[in-house]
Amino acid sequence: MHARIHNFNPGPAALPLPVLEEIQSSFLNFSGSGMSITEVSHRSKWFDAVIEDAIARTRRLLGIDQRFKVLFLQGGASMQFAMAPMNFAAAGQTVDYINTGTWSTKAIKEAEIQGKTVNVAASSEDRNFAYIPRELDLTPDAAYVHITSNNTIKGTQWAAFPDTAGVPLIADMSSDIMSRPFDAAPFGLIYAGAQKNIGPSGVCMVIVRDDLLARSPADIPTMLNYNTYADKNSMYNTPPCFAIYVVQLVLKWLEETVGGLAQMDALNRRKAGLIYDLVEQSEFYRGTADADSRSLMNVTFRLPSEDLEQRFVAQALENGLGGLKGHRSVGGCRASIYNASEMAAVEALVDYMRTFEQRNG
Amino acid sequence: MHARIHNFNPGPAALPLPVLEEIQSSFLNFSGSGMSITEVSHRSKWFDAVIEDAIARTRRLLGIDQRFKVLFLQGGASMQFAMAPMNFAAAGQTVDYINTGTWSTKAIKEAEIQGKTVNVAASSEDRNFAYIPRELDLTPDAAYVHITSNNTIKGTQWAAFPDTAGVPLIADMSSDIMSRPFDAAPFGLIYAGAQKNIGPSGVCMVIVRDDLLARSPADIPTMLNYNTYADKNSMYNTPPCFAIYVVQLVLKWLEETVGGLAQMDALNRRKAGLIYDLVEQSEFYRGTADADSRSLMNVTFRLPSEDLEQRFVAQALENGLGGLKGHRSVGGCRASIYNASEMAAVEALVDYMRTFEQRNG
Repeated sequence: MHARIHNFNPGPAALPLPVLEEIQSSFLNFSGSGMSITEVSHRSKWFDAVIEDAIARTRRLLGIDQRFKVLFLQGGASMQFAMAPMNFAAAGQTVDYINTGTWSTKAIKEAEIQGKTVNVAASSEDRNFAYIPRELDLTPDAAYVHITSNNTIKGTQWAAFPDTAGVPLIADMSSDIMSRPFDAAPFGLIYAGAQKNIGPSGVCMVIVRDDLLARSPADIPTMLNYNTYADKNSMYNTPPCFAIYVVQLVLKWLEETVGGLAQMDALNRRKAGLIYDLVEQSEFYRGTADADSRSLMNVTFRLPSEDLEQRFVAQALENGLGGLKGHRSVGGCRASIYNASEMAAVEALVDYMRTFEQRNG
Repeated sequence: MHARIHNFNPGPAALPLPVLEEIQSSFLNFSGSGMSITEVSHRSKWFDAVIEDAIARTRRLLGIDQRFKVLFLQGGASMQFAMAPMNFAAAGQTVDYINTGTWSTKAIKEAEIQGKTVNVAASSEDRNFAYIPRELDLTPDAAYVHITSNNTIKGTQWAAFPDTAGVPLIADMSSDIMSRPFDAAPFGLIYAGAQKNIGPSGVCMVIVRDDLLARSPADIPTMLNYNTYADKNSMYNTPPCFAIYVVQLVLKWLEETVGGLAQMDALNRRKAGLIYDLVEQSEFYRGTADADSRSLMNVTFRLPSEDLEQRFVAQALENGLGGLKGHRSVGGCRASIYNASEMAAVEALVDYMRTFEQRNG
C-alpha cells in the first residue's frame, strides 16, 4: 500500500509535500497564537501576516507594479466569468472573447446572459479545440479581450499572448498561473482558481489593474464589485482564511525552494517534455493537441482503444499513479503536471507508459 | 505559554479539538486515498462520501424533509444578501425585512441595490438594536420575510421565530445555526457562513425549499442562481472541498459526541447562563442587550470605563482567554461562545471576570 500516490489530478491537484507538512505540524497552534489557522480571526495580526505575505510574494513572482491589486475572492473562476463583464463592459460596448474550449465557452455564456455585445474574435471549435487560434478578428475599441491561457480539458495553452493593440487583456489563468514568467502589463484582469497551481479549492486569485477598477458601475451587488475587495484588502467580509494560508505557503515554496517562475518554467518544460517525447516516438500513444499549441500543464493523449484506456488508468492507480483519466466530456487520458508535480512522479509515469505499451502494444 | 488558548473569537471561531486532531492526523493521506483532503478530486469517491455525509447529517440534525435542498456555496452570508432578492423576488413584489442591526442593514442594502421594493417591517434601531422587535408590520403577499436570527455585534437573538402567516421566512443563521432545534417548515431559505458554529470560513451552508427554487429567473448569472447548486449537488464548479470536509466533521461531532441539537441547546444555555448570571449580579459588568432578547452565542457587556475594558481584554489574553474585544463598531467586550466553546472555557472566563472585578471594582 502506497502511503502517498503520484497525483496527476486536474484540480484539486497535488500540493508540494513540504507545504502539506508545515500545515500539519502547525495545525493546532498557528504561529504561537494558541489557535488553529482555521480558528484565528481574519482581523488578527496572525492572519494579517499571512495575507500580506501572499500579496507581496505574488507581486514579486509576477513582477507587477502598483497599478495592480492582488485580491482573493470566492466562487472560483466561474464567478469571474460573470463578474468581468458586469464590472468592465459598459452598455453597448463590445467584448471580445477567444474561444478555446469549455471554459471560454462558459465565460462567453455569462457575458451573453448579461446582454453584453459579444464578439467571438476567434475559435478553434472547427477542430474540436485542438489548437490555439492565430487569426484574430479583434474589435479596435472593445472593452476587453478575454482568453483562457490554458485549457485543462483539451490540453492546449497559449505559448505567447496575443497583441491586442492596447485593449486590456483578461485571462482565466486558473490552470497555469505561476507556472512561467510573463509580462503582465497588457492585462487588465487575471484570475485563477487556486486549486491547480497555487493552492486548494475555495479561493480565486484576482489581479486587477486600476484603470479597470475605475469602470465598475455603482449599482451592482456589493460582493460582485471588484472595488469592494480592492478597498478592503479582500476583507469586506470574512475571507477563506485557510485557503489563502495554503496559497501563501505555496508561493513561499515557489520563491524560496523552486527559486522563482523562470526556474519553475524550466522544470515544467522538462516534465512535459518527457511525456510528449514518449508520445511522439510512440505508435501506441497519440497526442490530441497540435504540437504548437500543446499544454505544459495538462498532457492529453489517447490509446488505440477505449478498453485499453480504461486498463491504462486502472493499472496506473495500482502502481501508485492517480488521476490519469481524461475529462468526462472528452474521454482518453490526461496527465496534469502542475507546479507541484515532482519530476520523480513524471519519471514514474513515463516508465509506466513504456511498460504498458510493451505489454499491450 | 499556553499551547492552546480558550478562544472567544466571534468568527472565525473555536472548532472542536477532536475535529482539529482528526484533520491533522489524516492530513497527508485522507481516507486511504494517498492524497491530502486538499488534493483529492471533488469528483472522487472520497469527496463524494464527505459531501453526502455532511448533507445527511444536516438533514437529520435539523429534521428537514425532502422539500429542502442542502447546498454549499462560496462568498459567505454577504453573497446571500444579494442572491436571495435576485432569485426570489419578482419585479414589483415587496420584500419584508426585519432590521436587528449591522447584518440586516447590509441585507436590506443589497435588495435595494437591485431595485426591489423593500418594506422594513420592524426595526430596533431606535435603541441601538439592543432588542428583538415584537411588533411587525408585515406585507400579506410579500415575496418573503428576512430576519437575522442572531446578531453577533449587539448580542441579540430571536428566542422564537415570527409568525409570517405563510409568507416564506428567510434567515441569516450564520451565528446560531445548529445551536438549537427549531421547526424549519416556515423557512424558504436558511443560510449560514460556516465560520462560527459549523466550520471554518470559506463555505456557506444554504438550505432552500423547492417552491422558492422554482422562482429563480433564468436570466441571472449562473453562479448566482440557486438552481445551479441544487441541480449539481453543489458541484457545478469546484466546491471549497476542505471547508466542506471540516463542516462534515463538526456535524459528526454534533451528532455523535454532543448527541444532537437538543443536547447542544441545553449546553449552550448553561454556558451563556453562567456569564449572564454573573453580569446580572454585578454592579461592575453591564449587559448591553435586553434580557428577553439576549443571545446565547454572543454575550456582550460593558465595564465602567473604556480604559478598564482595554485592560480586561489584554489581561484576559495573558490568562489564555482570547477574542474578548467587542466589535470595532460598538466597543465594549464580547464573549462568543458558539457550539465548540467548551464549558471549561466559559468557567475559566467567569473565574477571570470575578477576579478582575475584585481587583478593579
